[in-house]
Amino acid sequence: MQISASLAQVRIVLVEPAGPRNVGAIARVLKNMGFSQLVLVNPQCDPIGPEARQMAVHAQDLLDNLQQVATLPEALQGCYRAIATTARTRDLAQSPESPRSALPWLLETPSALIFGREDSGLTNIELNYAQRYVEIATDPTYTSLNLAQAVGICCHELRWAALNPESVHAAPVPAPPEDAESVQSHPQAAPASLDQLEAYFQHLETLLLEIGYLYPHTAQSRMFKFRQLYKRAMLSQQELALLRGVLSRMEWIRRNP
Amino acid sequence: MQISASLAQVRIVLVEPAGPRNVGAIARVLKNMGFSQLVLVNPQCDPIGPEARQMAVHAQDLLDNLQQVATLPEALQGCYRAIATTARTRDLAQSPESPRSALPWLLETPSALIFGREDSGLTNIELNYAQRYVEIATDPTYTSLNLAQAVGICCHELRWAALNPESVHAAPVPAPPEDAESVQSHPQAAPASLDQLEAYFQHLETLLLEIGYLYPHTAQSRMFKFRQLYKRAMLSQQELALLRGVLSRMEWIRRNP
Repeated sequence: MQISASLAQVRIVLVEPAGPRNVGAIARVLKNMGFSQLVLVNPQCDPIGPEARQMAVHAQDLLDNLQQVATLPEALQGCYRAIATTARTRDLAQSPESPRSALPWLLETPSALIFGREDSGLTNIELNYAQRYVEIATDPTYTSLNLAQAVGICCHELRWAALNPESVHAAPVPAPPEDAESVQSHPQAAPASLDQLEAYFQHLETLLLEIGYLYPHTAQSRMFKFRQLYKRAMLSQQELALLRGVLSRMEWIRRNP
Repeated sequence: MQISASLAQVRIVLVEPAGPRNVGAIARVLKNMGFSQLVLVNPQCDPIGPEARQMAVHAQDLLDNLQQVATLPEALQGCYRAIATTARTRDLAQSPESPRSALPWLLETPSALIFGREDSGLTNIELNYAQRYVEIATDPTYTSLNLAQAVGICCHELRWAALNPESVHAAPVPAPPEDAESVQSHPQAAPASLDQLEAYFQHLETLLLEIGYLYPHTAQSRMFKFRQLYKRAMLSQQELALLRGVLSRMEWIRRNP
């Protein structure tokens, strides 16, 4: 029961999947591995049509219940942790880890595991919504895994970790909160959720554009730096409230000069 | 290089696969994971036709080089170790192990990993050709994995073990040879290969039928017991030669009474 509970709070997010058969195969392997939440961001195919249904076999319920949203931030609503999968070493804040060392971190709280497009993966902007990155080790002669295989391998790793917690030697979180224990014991120090963080970034960007600190053509790269910085800090809700307070105060000053 | 070598000596054997798309998807994930030997026993589909080719994407070479044979013993020619995958707990000599604990055993010598039919797996007779069994842990609400997913998960486990030998805590072999060290140091104590064992079983069965110890209607169940016994003993080539000598002597006596 505890195993089902820890797996059930991990949401599998597919960004713009284009293959209905992949979506169906993923529904099947998710149910095989004890997952139930499948969220699609702007799917480029009919994810609940006959091709998907054929591949899902006895996981029709996962297709019936899948959520479709327009953007990645919507898919992450209510999550506290997100890991993105990547096939290439890119300009990431941290280098990618192995699924075995990083994924167990998702089992402790409502979380998301994000997979990119079949052909081109995730964009840098999308990768930016995750706090950590995993890469499945492949042979250099052919590195591109089928999407459903990548999901299957990661979900098998998660299921193994949930079933064998004693065998998990989780990698240290790249930047843990300084006082992890106080986060546990003081409810006001609970970690900020990903959508609270996202709302803060939106608020910050709007204000910085308004006051002319950011210009439309520089906003994206500057905001990238803010995002990296605040994500690395693993903010508590209290700290986030503090930061939002500063923004609100700046807005007030601006309107009441 | 050493990693490629240890993976390259593991042969992936599919018994009577019926889905050409599965065969193609398996070729792809094998190449992704660094394997090159795919052997099909009596395929029930065209394993190198357009559907398989479409799913293999950049692993056309694995389809070009796949071997098709009529029987499982032919597929195991030259192998010393074989593990079969199973989804159900059956009347097995050993209970199934997890892929993580059992599969690294295959990396040390020419070996085979055997997968059954999409719908019905392996028969008891086919399971009997393996020395160990693995079962991928699935959720009880839906235990049946897609064949290509099962292959992908097992090959990912093998690749991980080859890349991270220090992290492998292999399960003890159910019945190791009594003096494993002498097997290493004395070439005459090299283990018998699976096809040498199989040839012995054929020889034994023929003779036992001839001398009326076995009857056609009891042969299969009795031979099952002999197979279990000798597989458990992990015979050396020397010991097998001894056993074959007994059979030859019995034949000679019979012909020269």
